[in-house]
Amino acid sequence: MKRRDFIAGIGSGAALAACTPVEQQSTESTERFSWRMCTTWLPNFPGLGTGVNTLARYINELSAGRMQVQVYGAGELIPAFEVFDAVSQGSVEMGHGAAYYWRGKSEATQFFACIPFGMNAHEMNAWLYYGGGLELWREVYGRFNLYPFPAGNTGVQMGGWFNKPINSIADLRGLKMRIPGIGGEVLRRAGGTPVNLPLSEIFTALQTGSIDATEWVGPYNDLALGLNNAAQYYYYPGWQEPGPTLECMINLDAWNSLPEDLQAIVRIACQATNMDMISEFMARNANSLEQIRASGTDVRAFPNEVLAELKRLTFEVVEELAAEDPVVDKVWTSYRDFMQHARGWQLISEQAILNTTSL
Amino acid sequence: MKRRDFIAGIGSGAALAACTPVEQQSTESTERFSWRMCTTWLPNFPGLGTGVNTLARYINELSAGRMQVQVYGAGELIPAFEVFDAVSQGSVEMGHGAAYYWRGKSEATQFFACIPFGMNAHEMNAWLYYGGGLELWREVYGRFNLYPFPAGNTGVQMGGWFNKPINSIADLRGLKMRIPGIGGEVLRRAGGTPVNLPLSEIFTALQTGSIDATEWVGPYNDLALGLNNAAQYYYYPGWQEPGPTLECMINLDAWNSLPEDLQAIVRIACQATNMDMISEFMARNANSLEQIRASGTDVRAFPNEVLAELKRLTFEVVEELAAEDPVVDKVWTSYRDFMQHARGWQLISEQAILNTTSL
Repeated sequence: MKRRDFIAGIGSGAALAACTPVEQQSTESTERFSWRMCTTWLPNFPGLGTGVNTLARYINELSAGRMQVQVYGAGELIPAFEVFDAVSQGSVEMGHGAAYYWRGKSEATQFFACIPFGMNAHEMNAWLYYGGGLELWREVYGRFNLYPFPAGNTGVQMGGWFNKPINSIADLRGLKMRIPGIGGEVLRRAGGTPVNLPLSEIFTALQTGSIDATEWVGPYNDLALGLNNAAQYYYYPGWQEPGPTLECMINLDAWNSLPEDLQAIVRIACQATNMDMISEFMARNANSLEQIRASGTDVRAFPNEVLAELKRLTFEVVEELAAEDPVVDKVWTSYRDFMQHARGWQLISEQAILNTTSL
Repeated sequence: MKRRDFIAGIGSGAALAACTPVEQQSTESTERFSWRMCTTWLPNFPGLGTGVNTLARYINELSAGRMQVQVYGAGELIPAFEVFDAVSQGSVEMGHGAAYYWRGKSEATQFFACIPFGMNAHEMNAWLYYGGGLELWREVYGRFNLYPFPAGNTGVQMGGWFNKPINSIADLRGLKMRIPGIGGEVLRRAGGTPVNLPLSEIFTALQTGSIDATEWVGPYNDLALGLNNAAQYYYYPGWQEPGPTLECMINLDAWNSLPEDLQAIVRIACQATNMDMISEFMARNANSLEQIRASGTDVRAFPNEVLAELKRLTFEVVEELAAEDPVVDKVWTSYRDFMQHARGWQLISEQAILNTTSL
């Protein structure tokens, strides 16, 4: 994308006239920047929306107010699923979301959030910061005039809420479940019916039985939505989301217009937010899980037989995507090799330590 | 500690005359600060020393050079185990180390690094940032005129190198092992002989048989030390160090002299370094483990019987410490409660996901 398109992009949005014109920005570090960050999250949404507020606050604090970032929740300025295009076109300078929302742009994007049975948060961060993952992400997003940073992670999610027990893969046949992305495709291949529903409809759909199951996030967010009042069975683990990286994406021309110290501020604020958000999710999920258990929910593990089949189907889907698109193949090769190698270490470190809990 | 003592502290070190005098510091954000950070790590030591360099670089970048932090490795300005006192007294403004080194000051300090069979990195961060841990840490360190931040973590370490297999608790009797802290005391109660050795002597002591075993860090650091050439058996998990938090500690008067934006810069740089360092350890440990395996080392799990007994002895020691000191009791109560609760969530999230690896 050329600079003149970026300026045109700004001009074309009448509602966006307050956007800092790039042409007036210099590299002088005394200049002030007023940016807008549109997100895919509802305003102040627990953990996600509030995490974005933390990122904006960090940037403001670090720059002593020289760079102000105004956060807009989904729909406040830009609808959730138009954030990628809005930042790409320069209608706003920054966005916050999750890369798997943009698989319509390129199937390769989702590897920078998470794939089912893929890397957990710790592995994703190691891949992105020290395993070549971030360079690949920049290559993929660069085609869309975007510059991405890891800027949050929910940690492992839950497998979801079900109105009946799942004792075998046969119990997934005919199951109507709200589950997006590759996870949804895997459910379809297992004989279920994946559906997409807006957040506002999930609770009622589950409670009235118009869907049989839903995955959402984890105990903290699920309790906030009251899902423990809509279904009896809460399954783990969240095979479909083992630790999604959340993203801060920046219009590349806007990024290039920042002086070096403000670039450092944005980059390091994203990294600090990445630590902050996963720590918050951990603390709040632990609390909320206890409340969910206390409310009478039946918290259960998926049987290994079910997980094994879902895992087989997942890699069938992923290999098909890689066979169809050389960009996916390149990203998947890096992802798969890093994961194999990181997991070898995780099994004798994190898993072995967690295994001592029951001793 | 009073401000005049802090100034006196600076004056008393003739070699430290270049230290920025606090009295000349104002809250004007244009003022420049030149600080020194002494560490307990060898200069540029893989992962630890280099992580400290990252922290200093972040502060420099974020402040556009307004705050410069010069890093000194162990012994370059202050010996490793005098860093706490040097920062407390204001001889230098900042230090980087691990809180369990200071158990001679207060047994409570070590809970802010790690205890055997205690919290892993993810749990520690959740406790410190969102579970009241950091407030307790500030209370304990405040008595020493210090202001601490989490600023790194190695992740789970390894159990160590042994010149014979450990098949039962009886194999620990008479075992002479380099292992410090509570871990050492636990080994003693299991019938072994804990010894302390400086880094420079570990390899030779193990190779010549003057010790039978040593723990050090993990694959990345252990390979750098060549320990795979000194012993045959490499045991996991690192029960004695399940994820030590590393610390940045700041002289409280120096901290109070910083303008608000530089305080934010130090705080957020520490949080970003915390994310960066554990990601680096993860990537490098994974690589180094593969090299260690390829070199013919026998990588083994401690038998559950051994781990169960070491765990029992650990909590015997910890409960004794808590019974003797109300500060330890207060910190341990918070730590234990948070861990119990966080672990409940970890077992159905991280552990359950790692368990799918073998499906």
